[in-house]
Amino acid sequence: MHSKHLGRRRFLKEGAAIAGVAAGAIRSASGQSQTTIPEAPPKDTRLYGQRSRFVNSVRHLDRTGQDTPLQDLMGIITPSALHFVQSRGYDPPDIDPRQHRLLIHGMVDRPLIFSMEELKRFPSVSRILFLECPGNTGKTALEDGASTVQQTHGKTSCSEWTGVPLSLLLREAGVQKGAYWLVAEGAEKGSRAQSVPLEKAMDDALVAYGQNGEPLRPEQGFPIRMLLPGCTGGVNTKWLRRIKVLDQPEMGIWDLQQGNAIRVAPDGKGGKLPAMPPKSVITFPSGGQRLPGRGFYEITGLAWSGRGAIRRVEISTDGGQTWKDAQLQNPILPMAHTRFRFPWNWNGEEVVIQSRCTDDQGESQQSLAELSQRRGIQPGSFQSDWLKDSYARLGLNAIQPWRVSREGSVSNAMF
Amino acid sequence: MHSKHLGRRRFLKEGAAIAGVAAGAIRSASGQSQTTIPEAPPKDTRLYGQRSRFVNSVRHLDRTGQDTPLQDLMGIITPSALHFVQSRGYDPPDIDPRQHRLLIHGMVDRPLIFSMEELKRFPSVSRILFLECPGNTGKTALEDGASTVQQTHGKTSCSEWTGVPLSLLLREAGVQKGAYWLVAEGAEKGSRAQSVPLEKAMDDALVAYGQNGEPLRPEQGFPIRMLLPGCTGGVNTKWLRRIKVLDQPEMGIWDLQQGNAIRVAPDGKGGKLPAMPPKSVITFPSGGQRLPGRGFYEITGLAWSGRGAIRRVEISTDGGQTWKDAQLQNPILPMAHTRFRFPWNWNGEEVVIQSRCTDDQGESQQSLAELSQRRGIQPGSFQSDWLKDSYARLGLNAIQPWRVSREGSVSNAMF
Repeated sequence: MHSKHLGRRRFLKEGAAIAGVAAGAIRSASGQSQTTIPEAPPKDTRLYGQRSRFVNSVRHLDRTGQDTPLQDLMGIITPSALHFVQSRGYDPPDIDPRQHRLLIHGMVDRPLIFSMEELKRFPSVSRILFLECPGNTGKTALEDGASTVQQTHGKTSCSEWTGVPLSLLLREAGVQKGAYWLVAEGAEKGSRAQSVPLEKAMDDALVAYGQNGEPLRPEQGFPIRMLLPGCTGGVNTKWLRRIKVLDQPEMGIWDLQQGNAIRVAPDGKGGKLPAMPPKSVITFPSGGQRLPGRGFYEITGLAWSGRGAIRRVEISTDGGQTWKDAQLQNPILPMAHTRFRFPWNWNGEEVVIQSRCTDDQGESQQSLAELSQRRGIQPGSFQSDWLKDSYARLGLNAIQPWRVSREGSVSNAMF
Repeated sequence: MHSKHLGRRRFLKEGAAIAGVAAGAIRSASGQSQTTIPEAPPKDTRLYGQRSRFVNSVRHLDRTGQDTPLQDLMGIITPSALHFVQSRGYDPPDIDPRQHRLLIHGMVDRPLIFSMEELKRFPSVSRILFLECPGNTGKTALEDGASTVQQTHGKTSCSEWTGVPLSLLLREAGVQKGAYWLVAEGAEKGSRAQSVPLEKAMDDALVAYGQNGEPLRPEQGFPIRMLLPGCTGGVNTKWLRRIKVLDQPEMGIWDLQQGNAIRVAPDGKGGKLPAMPPKSVITFPSGGQRLPGRGFYEITGLAWSGRGAIRRVEISTDGGQTWKDAQLQNPILPMAHTRFRFPWNWNGEEVVIQSRCTDDQGESQQSLAELSQRRGIQPGSFQSDWLKDSYARLGLNAIQPWRVSREGSVSNAMF
């Protein structure tokens, strides 16, 4: 193991100072100084807490939004303040929840308008779910030469969401025969209007108002947003204000948008939203970090799939020659981040480490080389062709390799 | 159900305004105004996010600390900024993690000092666990005439904690034969020194540095704290700086403190820390809230046990005459808050609603009357005797009843 086995002199030198303080503390613990603890509340009492001034992890601002600092996260919950934002440059609308309404109309028996208070009276559900921008690991990572895991994979986050099942609201309104789609519209500038197949809406869609125990953050759609488990981030309409039930999709710009494009059945009666394929990434050690020396490290990271639960994560620490199972941290939930861990002794030589996951649908990640070959992309024209291809198919779920140099510095080994 | 079934005139009146805005939005969604979305990042970009200005739920300051606003929470995760604080009036120490060290010494083969960087190199674990002050639902609730669930039950919170198993650190140090206890000491003013049986320390104790994905908040022990799953809050030493391995407990003031008092085996070779008994509480509707009228409501709340997982929650809406099972929200985790839900139609009459839970050890909650009878407390001298009793036995896990008046106002019906 790696911690200091202190020699006697070292211990005496370093330990004595701490032990000295500690001895004082023991005296106080035995009762002598206990009365000096003030009974009055502290002057700077913070009834809504803040971080230590020594903690300063923040989102990374790029051209399309703000990325989650995955390298700093622990467990599976993303703090709401660090949830990725894909706002394309506009501020979230400043919505007064007392004034906000959700309208459900179109092919329904009873058009309805709900206040927030009314929505919260419905039966509710909480689920730990990831949200991921389809551009994650794609365009930005390629074009901007991403070097850190925040830049390559930071457009995914995982929260405990709470809301009312959309199916309950639709049943309340009474969906008419012949309806197969709805359009969900947000209240932001240049409102997003997203077509959603009725089948998905009636299955597991949520009109969410809670995120990690609190109301949604403004950037995630306060006071309500659509939540379509497993689907690409863009289709989850934020600042939701209107749902129109239709016999066909609207096919507006958002329905055709790269990455989030819907698939319509040949007869128009239904279709599919794009789901995120299985992905995993090692968050430690990852690009931009530095190992202080050879010895023991715990490799850790996240895996997730829009099609179900993660069943397996394998790790290679020899450039892909051999793979061993990582340990998956409970709880392992469908369409949620899953934390994996793998013990590793680094021998100090240059190595490439990487993870690959398999979901409970049996789908696994492949290397970029394998994916390229499968899609007939020439290695030479690689980068630009790949770009188009990945956008068309949402498929950039390639294995992410990190190179550890002899000096311990970690860099992106994808290209 | 309860939402508005809008008549045609009402819909035209209210709906038209929203539909009008919406129609404009559809025009923009079809492409005409899309270019007006600015490409530049917004001026007030918040790389560490904040709440909406319309969200203002905070902790409640009482004589002993700050209580979590359970009535406002959704799901099972308590936002770190709203985690209860039981600081007895002093500010958390302002610790620089680069300077902080953990010393392990006493009956060990190799006394060790760990920096934060070294601790984080060890294999780690994340667990969703509650922490609860043993005084929760006890002294304060009784003496101060608590009326809201924040006041009666707000000294419990649930987080995803991450840290290194203490067993790994102790194995690294090499615990010597004849050792049965350790003392864990914090770095705060008047340091808390808490005796912990070695058996618990080697079982599931964590030296935690992560809370809900981030480093611990200062009030919860930044940069490291002890985490003893299921045990009373007070024994989980915050701002941990020293662990001394011993053959017997120190029996300082903290080991004897009401509510947190340790139990020592007759031969001194081991013992038990107090564990929290099963508890549940309805958070909606709860004291201080007001139902706008008869009709459908979802009763919801939290259940937890320091001895294991919650197996069952039952709800009575008729003053305890009949009980029906509530639905438990997944994931149901040991020693974690579990969210329950129960559909309810309020007929507009005065009623008393309450929940009782059973954990997977088979232990259930009882009413205050049942508990009093079992312990031979006279109803007359009730309050003061009960106080002593509850403190001595940590047993105030009585069923919490709420009274709903004909006007819909909800009040504490415990006494």
